[in-house]
Amino acid sequence: MGQVVATYLVHEAKADLNKKAEGIALGLTVGSWTNLPAIEQAQLERHKGEVVEVIPLPDEERTNRYLGGERTRGLIKIAYPAANFSPDLPAILTTVFGKLSLDGEIKLVDLDLSPELLKAFPGPQYGIKGIREALGVADRPLVMSIFKAMLGRDLSYFQDQLRAQALGGIDLVKDDEILFDNPLTPFAERIRAAKEVLRETEAETGHKTLYAVNLTGRTSELKEKAKRAVDLGANALLFNVFAYGLDVLQELAEDTDISVPIMAHPAVSGAFSSSALYGLDRALLLGKLLRLAGADFVLFPSPYGSVAIPKQDALGIHAHLVSGWAGLRPAFPVPSAGIHPGLVPVLMDDFGNDCVINAGGGVHGHPDGAVGGGRAFRQAIEVVLAGGDPTAVGASHPELAKALSLWGGGVRP
Amino acid sequence: MGQVVATYLVHEAKADLNKKAEGIALGLTVGSWTNLPAIEQAQLERHKGEVVEVIPLPDEERTNRYLGGERTRGLIKIAYPAANFSPDLPAILTTVFGKLSLDGEIKLVDLDLSPELLKAFPGPQYGIKGIREALGVADRPLVMSIFKAMLGRDLSYFQDQLRAQALGGIDLVKDDEILFDNPLTPFAERIRAAKEVLRETEAETGHKTLYAVNLTGRTSELKEKAKRAVDLGANALLFNVFAYGLDVLQELAEDTDISVPIMAHPAVSGAFSSSALYGLDRALLLGKLLRLAGADFVLFPSPYGSVAIPKQDALGIHAHLVSGWAGLRPAFPVPSAGIHPGLVPVLMDDFGNDCVINAGGGVHGHPDGAVGGGRAFRQAIEVVLAGGDPTAVGASHPELAKALSLWGGGVRP
Repeated sequence: MGQVVATYLVHEAKADLNKKAEGIALGLTVGSWTNLPAIEQAQLERHKGEVVEVIPLPDEERTNRYLGGERTRGLIKIAYPAANFSPDLPAILTTVFGKLSLDGEIKLVDLDLSPELLKAFPGPQYGIKGIREALGVADRPLVMSIFKAMLGRDLSYFQDQLRAQALGGIDLVKDDEILFDNPLTPFAERIRAAKEVLRETEAETGHKTLYAVNLTGRTSELKEKAKRAVDLGANALLFNVFAYGLDVLQELAEDTDISVPIMAHPAVSGAFSSSALYGLDRALLLGKLLRLAGADFVLFPSPYGSVAIPKQDALGIHAHLVSGWAGLRPAFPVPSAGIHPGLVPVLMDDFGNDCVINAGGGVHGHPDGAVGGGRAFRQAIEVVLAGGDPTAVGASHPELAKALSLWGGGVRP
Repeated sequence: MGQVVATYLVHEAKADLNKKAEGIALGLTVGSWTNLPAIEQAQLERHKGEVVEVIPLPDEERTNRYLGGERTRGLIKIAYPAANFSPDLPAILTTVFGKLSLDGEIKLVDLDLSPELLKAFPGPQYGIKGIREALGVADRPLVMSIFKAMLGRDLSYFQDQLRAQALGGIDLVKDDEILFDNPLTPFAERIRAAKEVLRETEAETGHKTLYAVNLTGRTSELKEKAKRAVDLGANALLFNVFAYGLDVLQELAEDTDISVPIMAHPAVSGAFSSSALYGLDRALLLGKLLRLAGADFVLFPSPYGSVAIPKQDALGIHAHLVSGWAGLRPAFPVPSAGIHPGLVPVLMDDFGNDCVINAGGGVHGHPDGAVGGGRAFRQAIEVVLAGGDPTAVGASHPELAKALSLWGGGVRP
């Protein structure tokens, strides 16, 4: 029958965590229990939530002061029978963190779906392997870059930027997430224009670059628009999943007519994953739930830049995306923001070979422009894979050397 | 052309809020400005974000300690030209709080859409007036109650509960938000069974009661399911909007074939509205954005119960729902949780006549059951409207008297 086990971090003014846990397990399932006649207990047994574990944690003085009183801190694990909900993410989220999200200092830190329940979630349709096949790149991290300052610009500007990035050896170029339907660079025109440029650059250099177009608009129109994008030759879709809903992503991923990988952007996700006291854990939200919902690529804040998250969180997201998990394809982790070529050794130490190295300013801001920026990243990867130290290269890797003198080398931990 | 003005509360480690504001205004629109050639400035002028206002706020010692260092606190208002996004909520949210939601201690506290932009949002299709007409109740707060502990129960249990609530004079009975598609009480069967019961009770008492069925399932199936519900005789739809997405609600509200009011439930919303440092302001999220997206009823935590929000927040939500606003119909505020008949005077003081008094335990837990609970609420409203004090009634209002001796009277401020 299956179940989902939810783990909560609570900071509870009333001290008895076991009682709190029991209250959740019953309150969010059958309502009450001990006073029910035996015949009703038998009838409701399969719907009753169960306390799996209560783990007291040490107090945090800092948090007590902030909340204005002593709090009992702890982890509570509750099992919710799958009989209580339909096997979709809106139903699961409403069951485990619907009303409860409003109940004081409580954070959803993990969800474990039983194997029966996981069957309802096909996960990524391409994943790391499928994307590597599409690109013909088996053995190194991919390099991605982002169109810069496209608002108010026209298609020729778009094509020039794309050409430079592709000529630099970039594997994937994505739209900025804030580029929507607009008269200067309409959705279909961007796809057509990109196709033309990328055919030319591939003919010229032999290097294949994919373009990820931003899928935007009204929710009910997304599927048809995505199919049109595929028909027009789009290579991948960028999607602001948290501005729509996890189930919207899942439905796009499940539609086999949408035969390109989907890149989930973390826009808006900070609104419910930044607090230590409320919301959803970052690794759960950006790692587990996005893979479950079928993202092939997951962008998340890197632990290096100015918009950084703690390294532990970034590694947690990464682990959820690439781990063995009930036959779900691994998704490509894309640690983003603050990335420049000097960080490549650190990135590969932290995230391994199966990651996408993604840069905006670190490509476009190169002294030789995006062509130089792309080359610098590719050179850094090459040096690291050959066992060398990219921060020590010289004239043999001119673009990398220029990048290093501009941005410095990464600090290897 | 129009614009949206976003107001942010920031706690910024670097002290210069004006610089921070300028960085947002440019970074989330045209990227850079002062170094651009004049011809490009002319081209991009209509896309450039503008700092509207920067309001420094006094430091909070408690917050500084919690965040581990002194923070500059303030409000920043940025205007984003509507030329930068399509006129839909996902695009607006991604523009104003996409990447920015990940940028440290920043909270989106308000959004103001210009009149041109507001035209894209029809808002509630029924609103307070339409709902009052459907019920034939012009002059008093409505009374709503909730099915209790339906998981694992069958249709006859459902019908018995509904009958008792309707006989008590309840105006609206809603599904529990955690009741999904299930074999014991399937969606269509609940609607049919409710229709039967409510026809009987209306024939018996002359009182009309509406049933709000929980609209659940996969996103792309919701519209058809809602239309089927209407065809089967559903009176209203309950919708866990935050488990789906605001635009999903808006598309349901805009579909004229879905010719019943929609009740938005706050499930999951605590995940992004509970923190003082991150996420979205409650009044913005549950008040302004839900009305904009077309909710006819909005449930939100009352300021009275155990799952309470500050009264100021509840009044803020209320104000956004009922205020005059660019021709958008007012939505019915439904302050929920912890409501019992003794609170009716307080509720009516705080929320006026145009609110829905919504109770679960306060109806079902009455010594005479849900029939008595419903009557007690109706009696309390009647006494308040007649200028009396419901906490002082006696044998003339037996159900109210019993409720008061069980739960006490509300404390009038």
